[in-house]
Amino acid sequence: MDVIVGGGVAGLSVAWRLARAGRPITVVDPAPASGASHAAAGMLAPVSEVTFTEEPLLRLGAASLARWPAFAAELAADAGLSSPRELGYRADGTLDVAFSADDLAALDETAGFMEKLGLRVERLTGRECRRLEPMLAPSVRGGLLARDDAWVDPRRVTAALLTALERLGVAVVRARVRELVRDETGVRGVRLGAGDGGPAGDGGPEVRHGGAGAPEGRASRGGPYPAEFGAERVVLAAGAWSGGLAPVPVRPVKGQIMRLRSPEPLLGRCVRGMVHGQPVYLVPRGDGELVVGATQEELGFDTRVTAGGLYELLRDARELVPGVTELEVADVVAGLRPGTPDNLPLIGPGGEPGLFLATGHHRGGVLLAPLTAAILLSETDAPPGPDGLVAEDLVALCSPGRFAS
Amino acid sequence: MDVIVGGGVAGLSVAWRLARAGRPITVVDPAPASGASHAAAGMLAPVSEVTFTEEPLLRLGAASLARWPAFAAELAADAGLSSPRELGYRADGTLDVAFSADDLAALDETAGFMEKLGLRVERLTGRECRRLEPMLAPSVRGGLLARDDAWVDPRRVTAALLTALERLGVAVVRARVRELVRDETGVRGVRLGAGDGGPAGDGGPEVRHGGAGAPEGRASRGGPYPAEFGAERVVLAAGAWSGGLAPVPVRPVKGQIMRLRSPEPLLGRCVRGMVHGQPVYLVPRGDGELVVGATQEELGFDTRVTAGGLYELLRDARELVPGVTELEVADVVAGLRPGTPDNLPLIGPGGEPGLFLATGHHRGGVLLAPLTAAILLSETDAPPGPDGLVAEDLVALCSPGRFAS
Repeated sequence: MDVIVGGGVAGLSVAWRLARAGRPITVVDPAPASGASHAAAGMLAPVSEVTFTEEPLLRLGAASLARWPAFAAELAADAGLSSPRELGYRADGTLDVAFSADDLAALDETAGFMEKLGLRVERLTGRECRRLEPMLAPSVRGGLLARDDAWVDPRRVTAALLTALERLGVAVVRARVRELVRDETGVRGVRLGAGDGGPAGDGGPEVRHGGAGAPEGRASRGGPYPAEFGAERVVLAAGAWSGGLAPVPVRPVKGQIMRLRSPEPLLGRCVRGMVHGQPVYLVPRGDGELVVGATQEELGFDTRVTAGGLYELLRDARELVPGVTELEVADVVAGLRPGTPDNLPLIGPGGEPGLFLATGHHRGGVLLAPLTAAILLSETDAPPGPDGLVAEDLVALCSPGRFAS
Repeated sequence: MDVIVGGGVAGLSVAWRLARAGRPITVVDPAPASGASHAAAGMLAPVSEVTFTEEPLLRLGAASLARWPAFAAELAADAGLSSPRELGYRADGTLDVAFSADDLAALDETAGFMEKLGLRVERLTGRECRRLEPMLAPSVRGGLLARDDAWVDPRRVTAALLTALERLGVAVVRARVRELVRDETGVRGVRLGAGDGGPAGDGGPEVRHGGAGAPEGRASRGGPYPAEFGAERVVLAAGAWSGGLAPVPVRPVKGQIMRLRSPEPLLGRCVRGMVHGQPVYLVPRGDGELVVGATQEELGFDTRVTAGGLYELLRDARELVPGVTELEVADVVAGLRPGTPDNLPLIGPGGEPGLFLATGHHRGGVLLAPLTAAILLSETDAPPGPDGLVAEDLVALCSPGRFAS
């Protein structure tokens, strides 16, 4: 059996792909889908405002974006959804906008990078931007339309992954992993506990059994569960908490994000811009929600929603699309992204026999989920999925071995 | 029997004082203490920033402020609390601050008004303000300390009022009043219904019985309840919804208010100022909360928390006390104040035999509660409370008869 530690979008995607490849899988998480994935906006946009000069990350993102259509279609089918749109999947592009000459120059640079990678981009004037998105601020001076960009609703994606796992008979154990079990040959399993070190506290562990024996669409619950799970492989996908279980160089990067409720859609696509030197983005959902994200704060394991964070989101969103002031505030949440020293994820063999990593995705967990699962498939010698192997150079970029001393 | 329509701070205060005077009382409200009182900050400060030139309102406020110490002490005793501090009652003053020469001139004018009314005020320099409240913004140029001002926690006040009523055996009927019952002699009762027109929706009516038969500290629930209550007098205290039951000139004035959580107190007293032409105030609570209020919006019966309202609160609070950015956001609520054409409340005979009003308090419901109850006592010929009668000229200021055609 393989044990996946962590039920966020990375861990669940890996679990789903491995289970589909015929592997016996168990997922362990005290509160699946409640961490960074719950707070994520779900943009599938390889060019991230703060990192557009980081070509390696851009290449990873572009490769994973290319895998998303098939990933979404298969996931929808496995979860019993009628189409990927039920995951909130939309492929209508991202519009990056500029307010200043500096912003415009940065857009040109970004456009160059994207064209080099074969992504379709289009430079627009301010007027063209407003023709595309009439609610944009009049001060927008130009923009860059990334036609290939897409977005999903991460909460729907993780819910679909949990359903798909249930249908495949994969157990999702609602417990905290206290430590990895090791013997002289390497990592051989996980030990459960009720300590605190995970994204959410709950009582004792609780097992959700899916599969043939469970009633349709629902999971039975209950124990008894073992205090340890032996495993052929352990995949550590515990996001910002991964460092508590193995020497993994991840740190929490706090993000606060806000959901607004709009009686009619304000935007037709994702809109993004630099405001007051900080990136802000607005992601429309089909159900009339508009997601505004996100702060980036280095404050350790702090998940408080603060007056300052909320203020910045509201101020910056107003500058991009003044009409947001009329919208109702639906909720505000804070999550912790797993940051790494070089902003690249940690995917692959974990430096000990039996240990694999699928963490360190920082702001890119949702975008990189298909790529992460594909790399784990090949690195654990599972048969490749229908979308095939990952190029060797991309696998190397993500290799945790780059931090080995 | 007298029926009080409305279980906010005004209706509950009137009910409590009348019941204490020996009157049989029933209160009817679908969701007591959930309307404007729930959203109120609880400042007991007669000088309101936007109305300091309105001398009549200032006189009403000063008279009610003078009644608050005895009102709070008696309420605490009747509710079984050890002291008025358990109502969040604090009498440490309000500091009004100025950022500009215009603001300073306005403070001088305010100081004159307050001295004329015998209230203790003190003009402070910017440095003196910061000595008093070190967290104030460096841009504060001067201030006015109103030493007699106080504040309470309105949620604790209404909870104490409900407890006191229960102990006095007063029934609080959780139902909506559909209409007043009239005969040829005037208003003779109320008819209940499940229509929507009140501050909060719930299912069918539900009666809370207090008194000797109820277990200590809890109220029994259940019916059957009559579809009508006959009444010697009906006191209409339904806040912004009063106009739906009688021709009362009230309109809803929306206010959004935010509660922040502070690990240690940021302020020692209420702080208030004009920011961007709008008044903002910060009210500290003993339990480490800091209340930030409040927007004033004329939008009809709209209680949505909006991005724009929240943005203004956060922006203005930051300008007054920059340190608020570090605080956690505990909640944001919107309430509807009952505004009147002349900003003065409507307290007294309602123009029809058997009908009395206790509404139209706009921003002053909590401050004016003791005065409101005292006026109602005298206008309904109940024996005056321990704090005595209200001066005739103040009674006349509040008389609903001023709007009779």
